[in-house]
Amino acid sequence: MAVKLIPPADDAYNYPLLIKQLLLSSERYAGDNEIVAGNTGKRYSYSEFIERIHRLANVLTEAGVKEGDTVAVLDWDTPRYLECFFAIPMIGAVLHTVNVRLAPDQVVYTMNHAADDLVLVHDDFLPLIAQVKDQLTTVKGYIHLSDDAEPKAAPFEVVGEYEQLLAGALTEFDFPDFDENAIATTFYTTGTTGNPKGVFFSHRQLVLHTLALAATTSMNDNMQLLQASSVYMPITPMFHVHAWGVPYVATMMGLKQVYPGRYEPASLLKLFVTEKVTFSHCVPTILQMVLSSEKAKAIDFSGWQVLIGGSALTEGLARAALERGIQVYTGYGMSETCPLLSTTWLPLDAADMSLEQQVRERVRTGKPVPLVNMRIIDSNGRFLPHNGEDMGEVVVRTPWLTQGYLNEPAKSEELWANGWMHTGDVGSIDAGYTLQIRDRIKDVIKTGGEWVSSLDIENLISQHPDIELAAVVGLPDAEWGERPHAVVTVRSGAQVSYDDLVAFMTPLVDEGHIEKWAIPDTMKVVDEIPRTSVGKIDKKLIRSQLAE
Amino acid sequence: MAVKLIPPADDAYNYPLLIKQLLLSSERYAGDNEIVAGNTGKRYSYSEFIERIHRLANVLTEAGVKEGDTVAVLDWDTPRYLECFFAIPMIGAVLHTVNVRLAPDQVVYTMNHAADDLVLVHDDFLPLIAQVKDQLTTVKGYIHLSDDAEPKAAPFEVVGEYEQLLAGALTEFDFPDFDENAIATTFYTTGTTGNPKGVFFSHRQLVLHTLALAATTSMNDNMQLLQASSVYMPITPMFHVHAWGVPYVATMMGLKQVYPGRYEPASLLKLFVTEKVTFSHCVPTILQMVLSSEKAKAIDFSGWQVLIGGSALTEGLARAALERGIQVYTGYGMSETCPLLSTTWLPLDAADMSLEQQVRERVRTGKPVPLVNMRIIDSNGRFLPHNGEDMGEVVVRTPWLTQGYLNEPAKSEELWANGWMHTGDVGSIDAGYTLQIRDRIKDVIKTGGEWVSSLDIENLISQHPDIELAAVVGLPDAEWGERPHAVVTVRSGAQVSYDDLVAFMTPLVDEGHIEKWAIPDTMKVVDEIPRTSVGKIDKKLIRSQLAE
Repeated sequence: MAVKLIPPADDAYNYPLLIKQLLLSSERYAGDNEIVAGNTGKRYSYSEFIERIHRLANVLTEAGVKEGDTVAVLDWDTPRYLECFFAIPMIGAVLHTVNVRLAPDQVVYTMNHAADDLVLVHDDFLPLIAQVKDQLTTVKGYIHLSDDAEPKAAPFEVVGEYEQLLAGALTEFDFPDFDENAIATTFYTTGTTGNPKGVFFSHRQLVLHTLALAATTSMNDNMQLLQASSVYMPITPMFHVHAWGVPYVATMMGLKQVYPGRYEPASLLKLFVTEKVTFSHCVPTILQMVLSSEKAKAIDFSGWQVLIGGSALTEGLARAALERGIQVYTGYGMSETCPLLSTTWLPLDAADMSLEQQVRERVRTGKPVPLVNMRIIDSNGRFLPHNGEDMGEVVVRTPWLTQGYLNEPAKSEELWANGWMHTGDVGSIDAGYTLQIRDRIKDVIKTGGEWVSSLDIENLISQHPDIELAAVVGLPDAEWGERPHAVVTVRSGAQVSYDDLVAFMTPLVDEGHIEKWAIPDTMKVVDEIPRTSVGKIDKKLIRSQLAE
Repeated sequence: MAVKLIPPADDAYNYPLLIKQLLLSSERYAGDNEIVAGNTGKRYSYSEFIERIHRLANVLTEAGVKEGDTVAVLDWDTPRYLECFFAIPMIGAVLHTVNVRLAPDQVVYTMNHAADDLVLVHDDFLPLIAQVKDQLTTVKGYIHLSDDAEPKAAPFEVVGEYEQLLAGALTEFDFPDFDENAIATTFYTTGTTGNPKGVFFSHRQLVLHTLALAATTSMNDNMQLLQASSVYMPITPMFHVHAWGVPYVATMMGLKQVYPGRYEPASLLKLFVTEKVTFSHCVPTILQMVLSSEKAKAIDFSGWQVLIGGSALTEGLARAALERGIQVYTGYGMSETCPLLSTTWLPLDAADMSLEQQVRERVRTGKPVPLVNMRIIDSNGRFLPHNGEDMGEVVVRTPWLTQGYLNEPAKSEELWANGWMHTGDVGSIDAGYTLQIRDRIKDVIKTGGEWVSSLDIENLISQHPDIELAAVVGLPDAEWGERPHAVVTVRSGAQVSYDDLVAFMTPLVDEGHIEKWAIPDTMKVVDEIPRTSVGKIDKKLIRSQLAE
């Protein structure tokens, strides 16, 4: 008993899924569409862009890059980076998109850990590289990336400057076929503890991610994110999970693309207007920053579609965006997931909805996209029902998940325990299969066999008129396993006691907003709630302080 | 020097591309959408549909179907057939979609050649099977498909009737994972000579075809063929190249689907109106038949999108459809190609075009879709330029091409000569990468190193006021290799001589409509031009008659 396999004809072409094939349709569909460097004003037709990919491949191989080598890029969002998204994997090398926002010692860690062979580095990061260069143990050469018409000399030896090298390179490169499971990209995810962890994606994974994303971004009547007429401008860095994979889709579709360089609200807004941008994606803080800038007040944002991810889109931000005519949507994913897992999925009657209904639809974590198998599990690994109530860890299977962490066998097995990729997020899924993320699994409070979202409790406590900010953590409890404990800051001049808190929360229990075991056992008033270096509430520190 | 491969974590899920995964998103997106049996009026929710797939899998395995077995279906277009599109491959068996329009001896040939193990047969084909049953050498059992509430007994022994068997089956089946290269479907293509040839497609191929088709049918602003709001009704039989693969896309998207049963213009029109159908696909003759039916006169067709394939969409039919508000488009492909290769690709300013411009855009063979590598080659296998003039054989590479003909090694190698799949079509590709099919390679005339399209010459000759119909074939010529020769019928009462023909064509040469070597060497006036059994001009017969 075995499935039927039929050997192909001897000469049949066994089509591997490779990134180069995404370019097949680019020129066919592009017409006059251009790829624009927003910071320098340079504009490339798709045929120029493709020629530049060929030239870059020749430059890289002349510089000694071989199949299986790793080429690191430190750059802002530029057409040049898009060329690297293609040329580096297309010659069989691995593109390492270096997170330029990491501390220098972490940059060094990731570059040594990824074993970068060649490094492409923008003017702005030359000082950083000059500073850490001696600590880079595997790098054999550097290429200088400059936006200046007459680039200044780099402070260390380089193969050359990108544009000058391209100008001198041959215009044709014969991109080989190879195993579709060849690694195409790698980059690092940072947690609150330990070293950054490397994730990696193959050609096959990126092609499948591109196809699924292309279908998802255009098949809902009310969410025409990417269409032939779309103008795409990323506002998520290209080193951040392939700019969510959209550059690959936009290129496959031959769309007009605008790469803004370093993000500055004023220049982003200017490009939005002059280039007639229709689609962007970003984290909530960037949208907030753009909306609240002085220049934004005079701008008509109608027709701008913005996919929000990275952290939760709040109702307030969604409302503010919608009121300005921006169509905002939630996307969900992470470094380990390439990243697309789920998106807002507006119902067909969305146009008839009130603003508040629209807001509620758009802040939900969304529906898993095609080919994504998503479940929630309890602490014993059992699948939980999809009733919108039960909370469990979100686990997934898709064709585009990192198959482990680079050279971290123990963490890889943890990530993939029992054959499902563990997101580390806790959520509920409703009967219509919409996911709502409720907490991180390390923060969720397991009390008496139930899971309680620390975020849910915080949200309720924060509604107390005298409480400014609340953090809730679980601490070990002999009887219940864990119990919630609160740390709060109060408004200036106000006083709140633990009894006040209980008195405030009891009616919320009676009204069914929360279970009674979610009322914290203790409440501590502090001057300031501890935060991590990136500004998130530092629950690890709070737990250790409370446990003392 | 080798690309980088990284072994996955031990427990990492290696996601094979399997047809079952297309169902993951169906229920999530479907909402209240139903799958409708147009002929019986039965309606299924997506959850019922999926449960029926599970039941069918249990019925099939109880009937003895094992992995690698082949299950044949003889049915009209029904939700039942859609269930077979999923359940049969999902248990690891091969779905043989039998062409019920073949002559009985050809049906027998294909069923024996495919080694069908179990056969699902509709009422209307029971007499056929009863007649040929003794000649079927591999079949072990039959399941009766009936649309009657109280099915009549089949004239031979059957496992049972489909609905009755489903009603008695368990509602859950644990669909296994297996090699994504497992064959999922097989069916036969008929040529003008020899036996039908079997093509075959794997799970991987069908999943990739589905994703590419989903992206293609929604990413052009002017061609929103499949959207969340779409209502799909096939008017290409499901046995004909997977109904062009659209049932898989529509199911993945959770769309409302309407399966019309046997095609009758009156009932198709009724379903179009009552079910509010927005997307269909069919061959030109079916659209012609529907448009010219008496009932069609009163119907508002605006909002109906129809993809035309199988043979060329003529300007006349395109104009007639557009004038009735039907958005028609050309799709190109064949049995060997799953089938999608290219589609009409309307430019962004299509809405501003005149009717005649629209017609011209829509009758072209279209642009190759993503991942399709398409070239034209001359008789020496050299790639020809894309200038809209040079004609060559269309050869392709995509991830969804049959890897050969079933048990036909010589024909398989011919199909795949030099690593490209040979379509047998001759066409030109313009600078914008739009393909125009000009002829079949066996009919194109190779004269003095040039290829001349027999169809192009016929079209010009047909413009002679006294000529009714023209057929042009190439005959061997010592000096030029081949030379064109014409056979024509003339309008009643008229007379046309060879000199008249030359006099008519010479100005066309001077005006650049055709090269001078395209003027036929001889012209023969006949009473009737020979045709094949399916009504096509029989050029093989004409060649042999002229050569006598």
